[in-house]
Amino acid sequence: MRADARRNRARLLDAAEAVFAAKGSSASTEEVARAAGVGIGTLFRHFPTKENLLEAVYRARLRRMAEAARQLASSDDVGQAFFEFLAEQVAHSGTKIAVADALAEAGIDVRTASADEGREVSEALGMLLERAQRAGAVRPDVGLPELMALLVGASRAVEHAAAEDVRARLVGIILDGLRPTAGSHDRSP
Amino acid sequence: MRADARRNRARLLDAAEAVFAAKGSSASTEEVARAAGVGIGTLFRHFPTKENLLEAVYRARLRRMAEAARQLASSDDVGQAFFEFLAEQVAHSGTKIAVADALAEAGIDVRTASADEGREVSEALGMLLERAQRAGAVRPDVGLPELMALLVGASRAVEHAAAEDVRARLVGIILDGLRPTAGSHDRSP
Repeated sequence: MRADARRNRARLLDAAEAVFAAKGSSASTEEVARAAGVGIGTLFRHFPTKENLLEAVYRARLRRMAEAARQLASSDDVGQAFFEFLAEQVAHSGTKIAVADALAEAGIDVRTASADEGREVSEALGMLLERAQRAGAVRPDVGLPELMALLVGASRAVEHAAAEDVRARLVGIILDGLRPTAGSHDRSP
Repeated sequence: MRADARRNRARLLDAAEAVFAAKGSSASTEEVARAAGVGIGTLFRHFPTKENLLEAVYRARLRRMAEAARQLASSDDVGQAFFEFLAEQVAHSGTKIAVADALAEAGIDVRTASADEGREVSEALGMLLERAQRAGAVRPDVGLPELMALLVGASRAVEHAAAEDVRARLVGIILDGLRPTAGSHDRSP
């Protein structure tokens, strides 16, 4: 790909993410092209269908998520970095869910379409989790499958809570379940 | 409604819930009638459309949920009752989600259709929460909106986790976030 084509593609992806975030995934490709400052023909050269565009937005997002997790895994305070990363992911999961839902509606299996990026996220998140556990910031009985499912659940919970303050408390409550103190209650009858 | 009509209706609802739980909400009304041991004509007299049946199943379920929460609110160990209630609700949320999704697909707004039952659940759950908090079993900064959203999120998380042992640990982790010890970690930098 030539340098200007690469730039256009990146600009279209950024614009698409912003437009879908603001207007939902039903926003038109015309709006995306306009927001990116390119013609609709340029958009269609890069993304022949809207599904192609949605899929590319989704995959780019996963790649960024993996990159962030990898960088945070070498933070000085990896425990704090772990919790901030999760809170950030949950807070901005709305667009990701909307894009995934739109792809599912179009009959596209999101997990298959983004299998490589999904693996990247798993690896990076697994490393971040392991280091946060080694630092004593996360209870030891949490595995990667639990963490991945927890992220999905927390995102859906936040989606369900309308008020901003409820969302914030909710994320705090859910993430607190991951802390070592949370698992240390007396389970005896 | 005559006594035998009432019995048939109750039998149809039970059968519908069992059939939808086992085969998903796409199971046919014929299957439900067969499982209830009544003719399809009887089913249609009580529930003219499949959506009517799905809606009735959903509302009956919410009523049972409210009833259970009300009863548990006067348990001796209300803290334990609270956590067991939530774990039970999350574990059996699959059918409820499937029915709600099927109704949404049919263009029926589940929340509006079950507004009365939803209020009943809110009230009962609010009472159970308050008593569990007064007993010191649940952190004081959890409100009813957080709890309701948490239930939705936990159900979606469990749906996402394929393996049975992951599900069990996951529910434990999410519910542990509600315990008083979970909120007591050091938040200073």
